[in-house]
Amino acid sequence: MSELRKDPIVDRWVVMAPERAARPIDIVENLPSVDSAFDPFAEGNESSTPAEIHACRNAESVPNGRGWRVRVVPNKFPALQGTAVSERRCDGIYEAMNPFGAHEVIIECPHFETNMSRLSVEHIGEILKVYRDRLNDLKRDRRLVHALIFKNQGALAGASLPHAHSQLIATPFVPVAIQDELYGSLRYFSDKSCGIFGEMIRQELATGSRIVVDAPRFVAFCPYASRFPFETWVLPKQLASHYENIGLEAIIELGTILKTVLLKLERALDDPPFNYMIHSAPFDQPELPWYNWHLEILPRTTRVAGFEWGSGSYINTVFPEDAARILRDVR
Amino acid sequence: MSELRKDPIVDRWVVMAPERAARPIDIVENLPSVDSAFDPFAEGNESSTPAEIHACRNAESVPNGRGWRVRVVPNKFPALQGTAVSERRCDGIYEAMNPFGAHEVIIECPHFETNMSRLSVEHIGEILKVYRDRLNDLKRDRRLVHALIFKNQGALAGASLPHAHSQLIATPFVPVAIQDELYGSLRYFSDKSCGIFGEMIRQELATGSRIVVDAPRFVAFCPYASRFPFETWVLPKQLASHYENIGLEAIIELGTILKTVLLKLERALDDPPFNYMIHSAPFDQPELPWYNWHLEILPRTTRVAGFEWGSGSYINTVFPEDAARILRDVR
Repeated sequence: MSELRKDPIVDRWVVMAPERAARPIDIVENLPSVDSAFDPFAEGNESSTPAEIHACRNAESVPNGRGWRVRVVPNKFPALQGTAVSERRCDGIYEAMNPFGAHEVIIECPHFETNMSRLSVEHIGEILKVYRDRLNDLKRDRRLVHALIFKNQGALAGASLPHAHSQLIATPFVPVAIQDELYGSLRYFSDKSCGIFGEMIRQELATGSRIVVDAPRFVAFCPYASRFPFETWVLPKQLASHYENIGLEAIIELGTILKTVLLKLERALDDPPFNYMIHSAPFDQPELPWYNWHLEILPRTTRVAGFEWGSGSYINTVFPEDAARILRDVR
Repeated sequence: MSELRKDPIVDRWVVMAPERAARPIDIVENLPSVDSAFDPFAEGNESSTPAEIHACRNAESVPNGRGWRVRVVPNKFPALQGTAVSERRCDGIYEAMNPFGAHEVIIECPHFETNMSRLSVEHIGEILKVYRDRLNDLKRDRRLVHALIFKNQGALAGASLPHAHSQLIATPFVPVAIQDELYGSLRYFSDKSCGIFGEMIRQELATGSRIVVDAPRFVAFCPYASRFPFETWVLPKQLASHYENIGLEAIIELGTILKTVLLKLERALDDPPFNYMIHSAPFDQPELPWYNWHLEILPRTTRVAGFEWGSGSYINTVFPEDAARILRDVR
């Protein structure tokens, strides 16, 4: 029933997934209630999710039983699945594919907790390691060319369940937002013989005004042309195009800086809804000297309306220098 | 205080407009109440808006007094203004401009009315003519290269006042969404020696399954790779890259088809919040044989979350063929 379709003007793929709505006109979404009585992601309720794909488990625990710390399950209402045959077909000027892919949920902790920031640094590190391991596993399927890891925290950011979780959508195409970054950074590299991400980190560290946290291996800053108030990016200082190649020591430091930044955002903005996403190079491309994987955190405190949808431009009411100063100062 | 800043990776301009928020951390927007006692856009309350730029007035009425049908005023909290000097400057790898531009509000009727669809065809035609006239006026300023006309109807679509209005933001840059369409359609034209928009209209009319309304000069259909349930585009059948060159007879037909489509959407989806925007070629470009101005209507019935922000892709739960059939059938 589902289908992948490409817009012929801007090459943007859309996942047509009618199974995700009960009926066509039943589509106005309501905000889910945050204190629901039943938590399908909690330890003990493993049977209320599809069977697990992967889990960090205590010794002697068994799959789909108790005794896990991080657990990965297929999305119960997947936008994409691994069962269809991946095959492109044309219909006149249009192009479509069967909905091949993966849609997984990373349940971040066994107990009820809404905010990843309240988990320990070690626990966050374990989640980040699960991201890496899932990417490396999915990458073995040569039909998949990309996987986006993302998180919706808070109902206004699109979370449909309050229990802390992230998601992963693996696709047989490179999403247009990644494609745009790849084109842009390759163009810069061709022009200047150096990478835009490395230059950006160098300039941010030299200027300092947009830095939120400076750690040995990572830097967090509010980007120069932030789309949203308090938008914050976390980048590895050493250029690396694929997140799935991250080392264990780097993962621990990434967990530390991520917890710090999330706590700062939550304190400065009174626990805002936010999305984060990891931008990483396509599976089928080698290490790219012009690209850097990075994590983008987008607090969702403002509404996006006709101007943003129509232009792809944004109106941001907070200069990144002001946001970074507030985030640096908050304890 | 404001500034235009360009993202160095994907060439996306962002309007930094701190004046639009009271203070940096005061940014979580609340939905405005729809039945506010005072309507600043109503006839008789002209003094509660900045002085008018343009109006369709009855004989013997005077500017900023009663007796108008459509009225254009500067946005009270403009994202851009015409006072700054337009000047690009570099800061290392980054590029900025002074916030030169225009931000106008087109008040669509003198009486309180939330839905454009309830205005008469003639009145909607008058609004569409005002769009054209404003573009032609702004175009004379050679520092402006583009203007986006857009509408937010309903608080969930970003409307901050319920009285029916549209907006216009004129910029000294071409917004990235327009740039992407221009690149994509030029690439197609270079490859195939024909325009993608013409081919699309031809194929849609031949297929029929995604057509909502077929009129002599215009066609409304749900695009093949719709991002949102019930997304509907209105295109002129005769290729024309610049909206501001539209003729008076075409405007009347456009008003008719727009009213019809909006009424169908409102009946099918129970008065949904929506945005629409007119995509038109840049002011400083000649008539382009590969581009077609068009109006995109995006019902805002689903939340956009981490996957969409991170990938630029969309998950749509309603096939455009199903949406179009429902819209065709609704009376």
